Amino acid sequence: MISETGKFIVIEGLEGAGKSSAITLVNDLIKQHTGHAPVCTREPGGTPLAEKMRDLVKIADETDPLCDEAECLLIYAARSQLIANVIKPALAKGQWVLGDRHNLSSLAYQGGGRGLMPLVKAVSDACLAGFTPNLTLYLDIEPKLGLTRAAKRGELDRIEQQAIDFFERARQTYLQLASQDDSIVVIDASQTMDKVHQDIRSQLLQRLPLLHNKD
Amino acid sequence: MISETGKFIVIEGLEGAGKSSAITLVNDLIKQHTGHAPVCTREPGGTPLAEKMRDLVKIADETDPLCDEAECLLIYAARSQLIANVIKPALAKGQWVLGDRHNLSSLAYQGGGRGLMPLVKAVSDACLAGFTPNLTLYLDIEPKLGLTRAAKRGELDRIEQQAIDFFERARQTYLQLASQDDSIVVIDASQTMDKVHQDIRSQLLQRLPLLHNKD
Repeated sequence: MISETGKFIVIEGLEGAGKSSAITLVNDLIKQHTGHAPVCTREPGGTPLAEKMRDLVKIADETDPLCDEAECLLIYAARSQLIANVIKPALAKGQWVLGDRHNLSSLAYQGGGRGLMPLVKAVSDACLAGFTPNLTLYLDIEPKLGLTRAAKRGELDRIEQQAIDFFERARQTYLQLASQDDSIVVIDASQTMDKVHQDIRSQLLQRLPLLHNKD
Repeated sequence: MISETGKFIVIEGLEGAGKSSAITLVNDLIKQHTGHAPVCTREPGGTPLAEKMRDLVKIADETDPLCDEAECLLIYAARSQLIANVIKPALAKGQWVLGDRHNLSSLAYQGGGRGLMPLVKAVSDACLAGFTPNLTLYLDIEPKLGLTRAAKRGELDRIEQQAIDFFERARQTYLQLASQDDSIVVIDASQTMDKVHQDIRSQLLQRLPLLHNKD
């Protein structure tokens, strides 16, 4: 049942949507399905150099504020590095990869949130050349509820400190793109954690076997 | 004679073409022409965050080699940051800007040298939105001669260690783009330094007054 090439599963969502606990659950389900733990990545980041790029995105520098275009390009630089040195080599060896965010985050945050969709699409098309996850679980939550949850975790980073309408635009972009793409599954993340996990489990158990026909 | 908006002059060329001494000369000529020293920039770099991006481009990491796409995107991230926080604010205040490299380097090195022209053009078009230097002096030199000169300065960085045909492709791209663009002046940098500087001086003295008609 396990194919030669690994599969790339991504968890997406706004701050406070519950990505971390979803990743733990999906990690276990992939392990049960394939017999092996997946390679776990996070974006931006996931390689030594990409983590340094992540630092530049996350830290606020008042004397040299990061412009929106530089933020977008740093994230794609980190993504290119991660795909080249981690994701593609793992998939080629038949390993599964579980991603904490991927390209959909850039379309939502930088494209929708920042209003840079032409730049995001140009870079995405030229850089990724059609490389895309086999399955994405998008944990949908109202920004206000998500940010309230995220704030309880501790101090918010530079991006988490954006105004609420930034996250509203990002959410609308997530939902719009999900409605056009069968490989993106929307999970209602405003439910109790038990119900969210039940939905993730049932969606995954239904879809994982189908992925093997799509090499 | 001095216009309200500053002008952006760029020095370009392969390693060992003599950019540093040309910059000193052009700095003096701009000062004589405008009465003020220009704002000097270098790329990639030129702001605190852009210099950190430069470090990621320059340093070789054997465990996580920088992929060509990430190199290209880091350079454009740094350029966006420099334009937003240094070049455009200076020009808006009527200051002239003298750049050690700009977009033409990316077209030559990443586009021609690395073979990433579609990515470079997509990012360049989407990021710069037509922003371009008023005048570029391209110091043309055969890669072999230039690299011999550069090696005398000390240890070569990650990009300077590329094979000679990388620089050949970059040079051909420089020459091709210069042949299509009146704002790029080719200077024969294989001549003696005295003759190179004489050529730069005569080209600048002829062209500087004309720039004021092109706001």
